[in-house]
Amino acid sequence: MEQLQRAIIERGSVLSDDVLKVDQFLNHQIDTNLMINIGREFVSRFQDSKITKVLTIESSGIAPSFMAANELDVPLVFARKKKSLTVTDYIYSSGVYSYTKQEMNNITVSKNYLSSDDHVLIIDDFLAHGNAALGLIDVVKQAGASVAGVGIVIEKSFQEGRKMLEREGHRVESLARIHSLEGSKVSFLEELATK
Amino acid sequence: MEQLQRAIIERGSVLSDDVLKVDQFLNHQIDTNLMINIGREFVSRFQDSKITKVLTIESSGIAPSFMAANELDVPLVFARKKKSLTVTDYIYSSGVYSYTKQEMNNITVSKNYLSSDDHVLIIDDFLAHGNAALGLIDVVKQAGASVAGVGIVIEKSFQEGRKMLEREGHRVESLARIHSLEGSKVSFLEELATK
Repeated sequence: MEQLQRAIIERGSVLSDDVLKVDQFLNHQIDTNLMINIGREFVSRFQDSKITKVLTIESSGIAPSFMAANELDVPLVFARKKKSLTVTDYIYSSGVYSYTKQEMNNITVSKNYLSSDDHVLIIDDFLAHGNAALGLIDVVKQAGASVAGVGIVIEKSFQEGRKMLEREGHRVESLARIHSLEGSKVSFLEELATK
Repeated sequence: MEQLQRAIIERGSVLSDDVLKVDQFLNHQIDTNLMINIGREFVSRFQDSKITKVLTIESSGIAPSFMAANELDVPLVFARKKKSLTVTDYIYSSGVYSYTKQEMNNITVSKNYLSSDDHVLIIDDFLAHGNAALGLIDVVKQAGASVAGVGIVIEKSFQEGRKMLEREGHRVESLARIHSLEGSKVSFLEELATK
């Protein structure tokens, strides 16, 4: 997705060989026009999948999945990273280690909002080691629901996340696939068409 | 806003005399159509305010402010509830006590995304004691920016949040104002037109 690649190059910053900071348009400040186009791109890739629900994880997953859920005309559910006092019903939960934050989170989804009838599109901002996506898949399985696929905004293709998901038979659609961040330079698997 | 009042009555649940759970459409599962209409309602109320930025707080503030920022054609910034390792720049921060979660959060905003030129619309899901809104106002002031007003999805009018904000001279626009939750019944300050 060229608009996203341009945003990464022009507005992102490489903090190290494996950390890309995109808080100018995705993780802190949000470019809602770009997020709408990202949501529509997910819809175009998964529109024949008979999705009944979009599942993401707070907080940075909400904006890129918002318009996908809206255009698919299905509810958007965001997994929480720790149990809230106002969630009193039974929950599905899965432990997820965040390399970025160097901490374990318990991600939870209320049993009210995922059922065995659901065919779920999972969307997240980044795919690195695959831990968040695998936690969300675990939650979907606990509900007896099925996974339609995994939509990722930015895939760090030099880490093993995609391999982990594909090994379990999941379809992964990433809108930007980063080959390398070495030398503070972003290079994509598919380079910009204009280059 | 009648569509919102109906959602609260039909899909919300009263947990106690001061706790309303709306995780069926706002705090956990998100009704994106309703959120789009909520965003547009904020725009209609603040459209003459020359807003340059919408500021909210993760996670539940993101969905209702998304379309407001989009239609105002300004960036959306969400304050974080704790410092992330990938935010390496200087930050504005303010301590906020959450009665719901019974914990102190340090809300933070990067100095990159608020400046003294900004005229900021603050949006949040709930207004109760006013702590989150006051924390966001504090952050705006630290940036030398000005507050255009505070947009709230659900105001618990029986708590002192609105009074605290108005005492400081802020305009508060709440799309649903709850007079009482007593007896497990939601009653609004302005009752449904159809009643």
